[in-house]
Amino acid sequence: MLIATILVFLMHLGFATLESGLARSKNTVNVLFKNVMIVCIGLLSYAFIGFNLMYPGKAFAGMWFGFSGFGIGIPIDGNTPKYNPNYTYWTDFIFQAMFAATCATIISGAVAERVRLESFLLFSMVYVSVVYPIVGMWKWGGGILESLPTAFYDFAGSSIVHSVGGWGALAGIILLGPRIGKYVQGEVKAIAPHSVPMATLGVFMLWFGWFGFNGGSVLSANPANLSLVFVTTALAAAAGALGAFFCSFFISKKYDLMMTLNGILGGLVGITAGADQMGVQAACQIGLIAGVLVVVASYAMDKWQLDDPVGAIPVHLVCGIWGTLAVAFWGNKAGWAQLQSQLIGIGLIAVFTFGSAYALFWIIKRTLGLRVSAAEEIEGLDLHEHGMSAYGIEVPVSVITPKATPQPHYEQGQVYGQIGESSPAF
Amino acid sequence: MLIATILVFLMHLGFATLESGLARSKNTVNVLFKNVMIVCIGLLSYAFIGFNLMYPGKAFAGMWFGFSGFGIGIPIDGNTPKYNPNYTYWTDFIFQAMFAATCATIISGAVAERVRLESFLLFSMVYVSVVYPIVGMWKWGGGILESLPTAFYDFAGSSIVHSVGGWGALAGIILLGPRIGKYVQGEVKAIAPHSVPMATLGVFMLWFGWFGFNGGSVLSANPANLSLVFVTTALAAAAGALGAFFCSFFISKKYDLMMTLNGILGGLVGITAGADQMGVQAACQIGLIAGVLVVVASYAMDKWQLDDPVGAIPVHLVCGIWGTLAVAFWGNKAGWAQLQSQLIGIGLIAVFTFGSAYALFWIIKRTLGLRVSAAEEIEGLDLHEHGMSAYGIEVPVSVITPKATPQPHYEQGQVYGQIGESSPAF
Amino acid sequence: MLIATILVFLMHLGFATLESGLARSKNTVNVLFKNVMIVCIGLLSYAFIGFNLMYPGKAFAGMWFGFSGFGIGIPIDGNTPKYNPNYTYWTDFIFQAMFAATCATIISGAVAERVRLESFLLFSMVYVSVVYPIVGMWKWGGGILESLPTAFYDFAGSSIVHSVGGWGALAGIILLGPRIGKYVQGEVKAIAPHSVPMATLGVFMLWFGWFGFNGGSVLSANPANLSLVFVTTALAAAAGALGAFFCSFFISKKYDLMMTLNGILGGLVGITAGADQMGVQAACQIGLIAGVLVVVASYAMDKWQLDDPVGAIPVHLVCGIWGTLAVAFWGNKAGWAQLQSQLIGIGLIAVFTFGSAYALFWIIKRTLGLRVSAAEEIEGLDLHEHGMSAYGIEVPVSVITPKATPQPHYEQGQVYGQIGESSPAF
Repeated sequence: MLIATILVFLMHLGFATLESGLARSKNTVNVLFKNVMIVCIGLLSYAFIGFNLMYPGKAFAGMWFGFSGFGIGIPIDGNTPKYNPNYTYWTDFIFQAMFAATCATIISGAVAERVRLESFLLFSMVYVSVVYPIVGMWKWGGGILESLPTAFYDFAGSSIVHSVGGWGALAGIILLGPRIGKYVQGEVKAIAPHSVPMATLGVFMLWFGWFGFNGGSVLSANPANLSLVFVTTALAAAAGALGAFFCSFFISKKYDLMMTLNGILGGLVGITAGADQMGVQAACQIGLIAGVLVVVASYAMDKWQLDDPVGAIPVHLVCGIWGTLAVAFWGNKAGWAQLQSQLIGIGLIAVFTFGSAYALFWIIKRTLGLRVSAAEEIEGLDLHEHGMSAYGIEVPVSVITPKATPQPHYEQGQVYGQIGESSPAF
Repeated sequence: MLIATILVFLMHLGFATLESGLARSKNTVNVLFKNVMIVCIGLLSYAFIGFNLMYPGKAFAGMWFGFSGFGIGIPIDGNTPKYNPNYTYWTDFIFQAMFAATCATIISGAVAERVRLESFLLFSMVYVSVVYPIVGMWKWGGGILESLPTAFYDFAGSSIVHSVGGWGALAGIILLGPRIGKYVQGEVKAIAPHSVPMATLGVFMLWFGWFGFNGGSVLSANPANLSLVFVTTALAAAAGALGAFFCSFFISKKYDLMMTLNGILGGLVGITAGADQMGVQAACQIGLIAGVLVVVASYAMDKWQLDDPVGAIPVHLVCGIWGTLAVAFWGNKAGWAQLQSQLIGIGLIAVFTFGSAYALFWIIKRTLGLRVSAAEEIEGLDLHEHGMSAYGIEVPVSVITPKATPQPHYEQGQVYGQIGESSPAF
Repeated sequence: MLIATILVFLMHLGFATLESGLARSKNTVNVLFKNVMIVCIGLLSYAFIGFNLMYPGKAFAGMWFGFSGFGIGIPIDGNTPKYNPNYTYWTDFIFQAMFAATCATIISGAVAERVRLESFLLFSMVYVSVVYPIVGMWKWGGGILESLPTAFYDFAGSSIVHSVGGWGALAGIILLGPRIGKYVQGEVKAIAPHSVPMATLGVFMLWFGWFGFNGGSVLSANPANLSLVFVTTALAAAAGALGAFFCSFFISKKYDLMMTLNGILGGLVGITAGADQMGVQAACQIGLIAGVLVVVASYAMDKWQLDDPVGAIPVHLVCGIWGTLAVAFWGNKAGWAQLQSQLIGIGLIAVFTFGSAYALFWIIKRTLGLRVSAAEEIEGLDLHEHGMSAYGIEVPVSVITPKATPQPHYEQGQVYGQIGESSPAF
């Protein structure tokens, strides 16, 4: 589990590189700064409040809410046998803390390139240390969702982590509005990522870390369970890639790398709720459908002019819900009773987290302000807030002057135009 | 072993970053796309066919070939004690599946920047799910190579993984021909990598993952064996770097980073066949010679006008053969009998894999076509096949205008010229 | 411990990406080359000499120095039960060897962008294989520091690894002098990093690897100790980020990403000496103060015109000393006796390592030369020593021409000016 913990830690690197790769270079330092600070603030605030909200233990106060005081204060020997035979108090805390911070990182991507830094960090701190742990307690802390006649099932958090992040992201996007230049007179303008290799690196890191995310949730080193979880996790991701690849190729006739990458993530989110209960075929089917859902949801988002720079909502919210439902179709207790419980869980989480996030963002918008100025957005957040530029790569000019190509059998202007349009400031 | 599995998974990130770093920026998205898809297709097709070809078990049909049916279908509890006391059915599958996909990734680098994407993916799918597992069965599945009087020895796959990839790469290179602009009127033009840091990152990731590749092949957590394997793996890599460094410095009088990096990989491939049987000195010697071989083979390849953008053949084929032979010189059963077995194994694998790969590539060439059009190659595969560019980094122009330097005591024009020449399209 | 070993290995990737990201693009290949070679040379020379200087065992010759012969030569079965019940001979060696190489990597960053490559590699080889192991023996090999009435305490090497690197760095910086263009007529000119994402990636990798650095130092898999170490390590890093963030914001009114990242590293160095003895609050306080110290020391360095491109001295030397002292304030044996021992240790290490490093650098300066020529430094080390450029990224020109911005409410010229100034050659 400690190994799983540091794999989940590495997911933060994955999020950081994925988001910064997908952002424009003028906002890259800002994205990185946000991601670095979220991990740090998340760990500290989860230690201060969150852990005791999520696992109130004996201080348990009810089905909906419990709290066992501030700080984590057990003596240095956290290895009390009463605590749990499989892991120590400290192991439990640090594993859960790494989880908690991912929740805010999901939102970070969705609101990137226009949100005010301090407003977002304030939001994250509250969301990670209060909203997320309360939802977590409903299931993992023995609360209301665990107590349903057929218990709500969410193995490693399709709903409890990913959709919680996704609902927060949706609230943020609605209140923030799209980036300048994304939707011009009803038309969608693609904003190209500034570094595709960085984004690809991020997805590999996330996939790598997911073996810890799902594997660690076995909460023991039982080799049968653990190895099954590794197989379902890997195959769902692979199937997600294929689903997104074929679906996007069908629509755009291009081999769309970004969609394929998000398909991997969608497959991973989709399998997360039932990674310990699925066979090989079910894992592939769940992943495949998740990959298709990512593509469909991405187009739908653009149709509704909801600007989500990294695709956080298609990946984490839509596939999170899908994964939660899939447990009722392929899981151990598949059936109508399970489906009801899953729907109740999805509904409760939706109302509570979207509601809280909307309220929180709304209050911040009325007080601190939520969005940077238009000038700052166009100029880039890096120079304004951080006083620096992400890159100082010196390239000999001879290399970068485009020349006419011998047989241009595609519309060169259009493609360069797209890239140019993506950066109105330059 | 599960940890080893995910380390091997990370090698795919290593391959992806190494190859994309070494490619030109106009083909970067294409390289990344290929590498992402190979992992996904490899995992799925190995689950569907490959695993049952490689480990046919009771359905074993002979020394050369066996097959136990499509799909992996054991009940969810893969922890049957009969299977293996050290690992579960699932663990075995997922570890082997990660291995299998590396085989295609090796080829991917060699054919980069000019191969048609769909042709290559089709080739990979067949190679990973049919050709590779048949060879694997010969040794690891209890087939012909295991049954030699002195069993052919290949601990973690210098031959069975790396040279299988290398032979496929050689067939591909021969049928594809060199990249446009690489060999002009008999002269070799260096094509500069577009991102050296990315390539270096890839080599570190591969080295890191190799501890899983070799360490996991111990197939148990026996600390004595495992720790010895870690020591030999690390020292052979380090010695490979020194070998390549000195050899390339002797030839070019430059500190050649790319050769040094490939020397590390060569050392790793070289130690792979006998990582569990070598002492410290033997590991250093094997690595050192592997590093020298990488440099020599790289120059030989250019002499024969075989264009291998990433050096896959010097690293994986040449050092794979070297490592297999080295077992007969330094291994536990070093001697003439072992050498004969090793030579038989090398020969059989060469004939079968090079033959299959050549046939497969040839059929694809006659039907689908193997190579993109010249215009597309010059323009870059990214815009054509993926409709996007890998980078949208905005750099203030003041930074990128080269000025005269105070005391230019080297030929500036020549160096910039080289870089310019590497990208005929611009 | 073997897993910890490869995590520490990954720290070298962290150092390589951090340093190359912080350097200018014209020196990137050089920085990467140095970092790759250090790992390789470090591993080999530690095997040849270092390990037997650090752990002389029965050949122990005294409190200050011992040596048990060249090479590591135990029979292939390193699993002698007499050696240690928790780990094998090979495990011990490879874990220690990975540690040793980090020491030179710390120095590498401080002398970057102006040091002669061969001079530095020679220095590193001697420092890693002689100076570092002698200091290590004083404590971990049972020497003088271990024998103090109240034993000097340094759990995983705040002093024995980090400050040893830091003192070497200080000697190097003093003898080398600042980079051209860093201090102009008494004024400090910021030299901007060429790739902030690369540097951020490096810090994440270092943090990730640190779990192995500190976790492996438990020298067993005792879950209580190990999990506590993970918690203190993670929280100190997070607190270090906050400390540096607030302190730098107070000074510069900017959200300073680079300082925040170095704050993380400072927190990690700070907790290293007592990671197994601290509670949650102590870990946070140690980290917080370390973060502040990093910022203060960075400004002080500039005041004294000591040019340390990556902040190695604020991070590794200053926080290394701080962490060592912190054990006397919050550790198990906190008190005056412990403080005396810590001060003795800090002093002895300072005198010996700074003295040795200064002498070694001085001799190299008088013989081989320590610094490249001014022309070479201005032109960049990559073209001169490596004959290549780190990047060949082709960017359409339309993207990179800066245009006037609608509402420039900050001093555009000043910022671009800063970036321009950072690269006098272009």
